[in-house]
Amino acid sequence: MTLGTIDGIVIREPDEPVRAAVLSVGSELLLGDLTDTNATWVSLRLRELGVEVVHHLAVRDVLAEFLDALAWLAERVHLIVVGGGLGPTVDDLTREAIAEAAGVPLEHHDDLAEMIAERFRAGRFEMARQNLKQALIPKGATPYPPVGTAPGFGLTLPEPTATRVVALPGVPWELKELFGRFVADEVRQLAGARATVTRIVHVVGRGESNVASVIEPLLEGRDDVVLSFLARSSEIQVRLTVSAEDPHAARAASQPLVEEVVAALGSAVVGVDDDVLEDVVLRLLQERGQTVATAESATGGDVAARLARVAGASASLVGGMVVYTAAAKDGLAGLDAALVAAEGEVSEAVTRDLARAARERTGADWGIGVTGVAGPSMVDDLPIGSCFWALAHPNGEVEVHGRRIPGDRGQVIARLGSAALDLLRRRLLVDGVDDD
Amino acid sequence: MTLGTIDGIVIREPDEPVRAAVLSVGSELLLGDLTDTNATWVSLRLRELGVEVVHHLAVRDVLAEFLDALAWLAERVHLIVVGGGLGPTVDDLTREAIAEAAGVPLEHHDDLAEMIAERFRAGRFEMARQNLKQALIPKGATPYPPVGTAPGFGLTLPEPTATRVVALPGVPWELKELFGRFVADEVRQLAGARATVTRIVHVVGRGESNVASVIEPLLEGRDDVVLSFLARSSEIQVRLTVSAEDPHAARAASQPLVEEVVAALGSAVVGVDDDVLEDVVLRLLQERGQTVATAESATGGDVAARLARVAGASASLVGGMVVYTAAAKDGLAGLDAALVAAEGEVSEAVTRDLARAARERTGADWGIGVTGVAGPSMVDDLPIGSCFWALAHPNGEVEVHGRRIPGDRGQVIARLGSAALDLLRRRLLVDGVDDD
Repeated sequence: MTLGTIDGIVIREPDEPVRAAVLSVGSELLLGDLTDTNATWVSLRLRELGVEVVHHLAVRDVLAEFLDALAWLAERVHLIVVGGGLGPTVDDLTREAIAEAAGVPLEHHDDLAEMIAERFRAGRFEMARQNLKQALIPKGATPYPPVGTAPGFGLTLPEPTATRVVALPGVPWELKELFGRFVADEVRQLAGARATVTRIVHVVGRGESNVASVIEPLLEGRDDVVLSFLARSSEIQVRLTVSAEDPHAARAASQPLVEEVVAALGSAVVGVDDDVLEDVVLRLLQERGQTVATAESATGGDVAARLARVAGASASLVGGMVVYTAAAKDGLAGLDAALVAAEGEVSEAVTRDLARAARERTGADWGIGVTGVAGPSMVDDLPIGSCFWALAHPNGEVEVHGRRIPGDRGQVIARLGSAALDLLRRRLLVDGVDDD
Repeated sequence: MTLGTIDGIVIREPDEPVRAAVLSVGSELLLGDLTDTNATWVSLRLRELGVEVVHHLAVRDVLAEFLDALAWLAERVHLIVVGGGLGPTVDDLTREAIAEAAGVPLEHHDDLAEMIAERFRAGRFEMARQNLKQALIPKGATPYPPVGTAPGFGLTLPEPTATRVVALPGVPWELKELFGRFVADEVRQLAGARATVTRIVHVVGRGESNVASVIEPLLEGRDDVVLSFLARSSEIQVRLTVSAEDPHAARAASQPLVEEVVAALGSAVVGVDDDVLEDVVLRLLQERGQTVATAESATGGDVAARLARVAGASASLVGGMVVYTAAAKDGLAGLDAALVAAEGEVSEAVTRDLARAARERTGADWGIGVTGVAGPSMVDDLPIGSCFWALAHPNGEVEVHGRRIPGDRGQVIARLGSAALDLLRRRLLVDGVDDD
């Protein structure tokens, strides 16, 4: 897709956004042996450079399919970033395919051959004859000298498309390095000044459609904002991508929007950008110099493990108890066996006592207790998903909450854990937001 | 791309392989916010069902671009698996796009609306009006009832392409579940008489390239077998897909291969097919009528939580302790504080005492203790990845193992837990395989 050319220099209409595609080459992607993380990385970088990525396309190491895909994309975008197919083996077809699409021959570059040989010497590897194939690039292409053993190159296809094609090795670190050294500047020139920033608002305890129905009206008519929602087991992410003339302006424009979203969702917001629930809880604890411990039945240790996966957790996580059986609730947490039998293992009373025991037995400031029916079987005739979570406060008071949590066993465990951690988060916010 | 139809029944040339594409829908993919793991998973499953996946294509939530991509793929493949765009929000376009491509209207399904409403009632969530949009599917399509809140559907496009299009929600667990319940059988029929079976051998404690170097030579010249390796934090999967005339023959042909692979990898094999490490440990415990408890430092409860995620864990998992701080090691597990101070929190002696405490304090038959330096900081000058795991036997004896485990914080936690669970597995195998 042409940007227009004058004397071979590619230009574009000033207000037309540059559109790009990532073309990933390699049969292993289509066999399901490998996930295409290059496409994700390149897309994020291009977006930060003000380019709209409209397609990811993956093709096998089959020349006809490669050419077919290249032709389709060339009619639709201004820039194609090709990843992979630059190795030395017979199934590495990127050089041939792009040369054929451009109608030019391959040309041997002595200087690239010397660089490749040098890299083998430096690594004390034997260079196979076939590695010299990597010194071939399409006539007229700009060579990108190798950081591994594969050089890349950039070439503008002939009219009518005049699409710029950039070919990079598929090995992720080589792709990233060559992109940074050679492609980023090319793209900046193509794209002009516009930059974007993505802000993330993390939400717990509400469904995606509920969140969408609150947020979508806020952003109506905002052409400079791309809104997306990402649903995970333990949270919903509201993602706002704001574009502006430069990165500073984009960030500045994003801030009031983030504040508007946070205000609209109230206490369901657990954090912004890198702040996920576990991080926020640990940071709030650390700010207060307080600690937490858990006594978990249904989650089986997952609440403590989620905190423990955060670097630096040991400053605020004392530990806890996994009290999976009635015997453990008695033996480890010291619960009254008669009470457990009378109230049921999944009950308000037992959950309350677990939170209290977590706090008292460890000397932690806060204690979390959780019980629930994660499924697939019912417990004491309680339906699957019936859950309780309790929080023992530093003053010894204990509050208990309960509801039925939807999902399969894994989701019930994740959501129950999030509910318990979120309760602690809300109580740690001294100037507490609304309490629902 | 037509397979040919007779009276609306799709057929194909007997020797022509079925070609498929995965079309992933969602602006977040093109923004670089999310990596498309669905395409990988669907490709692996399709390959195991005898289908050649030739393209992955990702599109934004833009109707014209979606239709353009759908048309291009429909001319090239027999089957398109669409992932995403089935949610309730305005940017969910998959229903509209496929209906428009097929030239049919959208139709409201009362039974789907009722199922969606029921799923909200079960979760005690408020259903937004817009969720009813999810009960619309193209006229003539086969509905796939929801497992989350989004139904999927299958529809054959009109001639000349007659391409089968299958639409599934983008949430990975929903996509996998609906694929298994509805799509796999459809694909088996499309792909013809040859049946395939995929056998999985789960391996712990070895690297992927080591496993590959042992297994690849075993399968040379076997055209009826597709071999792939899948590396997870906690295990390597060796996947053998065997094709034959019918499922019975495929399974029969797979069995000696599985046995050969298991023999070649020896005690590194933890299970076959659905038997992952946690399942095997729990089953072996149940067969013996024995129980286990844990005392975890570095893993923070993750070992117990991994067992608890398996349905029926309560028969064999008593519970345990999370002893993250020195105070918890003393207070909860009763370790000698002087010993902890002298030996270090991450040490053979402390790990030994944790395993013993796990067993003795809970009355479980077996006790697991784990300590380690998960990073990013060192502990007591021990390098990151230094780990110990110990097992207290029913007779009271305790064995301790240690080594440096590679990876980032999350990987160290996962691999340390696997090492501890694998040790228990080996000891539960009475006629134990070799003990390395």
